[in-house]
Amino acid sequence: MTQNIYDNDTFFAGYSQLPRSQRGLEGAPEWNSLRAMLPEMAGLRVLDLGCGFGWFCRWALDRCALSVTGIDVSKKMLARAREESDPAIQYLEADLEHLTIERGSSDLVYSSLAFHYLKNLDPLMAEIAGALVPGGHLMFSVEHPMVTAPLYPAWSEDRDGVKAWPVNHYLQNGPRETDWLAPGVIKQHRSMTSYLNMLVRHGLTLTHIEEWGPTDAQAAAQPSLLDERHRPNFVLVSAVRR
Amino acid sequence: MTQNIYDNDTFFAGYSQLPRSQRGLEGAPEWNSLRAMLPEMAGLRVLDLGCGFGWFCRWALDRCALSVTGIDVSKKMLARAREESDPAIQYLEADLEHLTIERGSSDLVYSSLAFHYLKNLDPLMAEIAGALVPGGHLMFSVEHPMVTAPLYPAWSEDRDGVKAWPVNHYLQNGPRETDWLAPGVIKQHRSMTSYLNMLVRHGLTLTHIEEWGPTDAQAAAQPSLLDERHRPNFVLVSAVRR
Repeated sequence: MTQNIYDNDTFFAGYSQLPRSQRGLEGAPEWNSLRAMLPEMAGLRVLDLGCGFGWFCRWALDRCALSVTGIDVSKKMLARAREESDPAIQYLEADLEHLTIERGSSDLVYSSLAFHYLKNLDPLMAEIAGALVPGGHLMFSVEHPMVTAPLYPAWSEDRDGVKAWPVNHYLQNGPRETDWLAPGVIKQHRSMTSYLNMLVRHGLTLTHIEEWGPTDAQAAAQPSLLDERHRPNFVLVSAVRR
Repeated sequence: MTQNIYDNDTFFAGYSQLPRSQRGLEGAPEWNSLRAMLPEMAGLRVLDLGCGFGWFCRWALDRCALSVTGIDVSKKMLARAREESDPAIQYLEADLEHLTIERGSSDLVYSSLAFHYLKNLDPLMAEIAGALVPGGHLMFSVEHPMVTAPLYPAWSEDRDGVKAWPVNHYLQNGPRETDWLAPGVIKQHRSMTSYLNMLVRHGLTLTHIEEWGPTDAQAAAQPSLLDERHRPNFVLVSAVRR
């Protein structure tokens, strides 16, 4: 089973302070890009894998999704999601690595920044592909493989003093331990092509991909985001089941 | 028009000494992976964009391709290709940025390490998509965006003394000048997603992608190739026109 760092007290306390936890979707700089990649929500059966505090579930319901199910492994996050939630949203506690999803039960599977915690993503991708109806969408974001690859992730500088991000071990998929909000957080590095070929292998067709960087307006409001133009932090992917 | 560095005497002399120039396809470490991604060649109308010395054109003809056309901007390379060539191969000198290809004229478009020299790739991709019959394949390789991104491309080391490749300016598509075989070689950096979304935009479906690294046997025979596991040098892409 995947490390459930979100139920670690220190991690949870730190995570709860992030803008994306306090302000929800609008607190996540990549949200506008994700939203632009989503289909029209009205009437869709939506499944959110790694739903956290349920911000996306509530957003989907507000846009007249037909049904919304949020799944997460973290008891702490689900507890808060349920507090704030509409009873029309179904929240389930489950380990995404051992999840079975009813075939043909979803029009949209959404997952924000969850897949890079999973040691074995392939079985889940098979479930997702089976769960989607023909024409159904998978939309997910993960940490960029350039971010997860190095054993010692940290900025350096080039000879002009411009930030640079040293990448190594890129083709070696597997766990990477970092100290982020708490010591010993384990993320699973996968190369870009590992993600993309997994989609293809399960019969999903890539429809859009984005290595996220800030708009000029975002960078003006929060200059630290400019680092992401040097080395984007997130990859956003949408795919369709043909 | 794209810089035609291959007709620079110094560059051409250096390039002619590379294993891939001297030994052909077998001299290119990524060739086995490319070959595994190619369709059965017999009976195909093949177009090679940036054909260089014509190694792939001759290989395709040997495998009973129905017709083979090689296009390159370099007079020097085409002259050598024609010397060694079968008269059944048609070689054309043209700038790939201003190429018109007859619609429906190709079953396979192939391009090895050429696209990253083109300032404007989009018009060529439109031509390729139009040239391919439904079910036809595009197969291309380019330098990995991690390689082309930084203004000062060079290895550094992490705290364990392991090689690391500092990336910056990744989201800033455009020219990068390097000294490779000759001073002032200009390559065009594009992010991974720029390439992939361009395929999608022109109606091509991604079927396989590889960030190339050496097999154990290749690494044993040529240990310097192990660097590519830290930061792969090439991306190999295959797509199909639906």
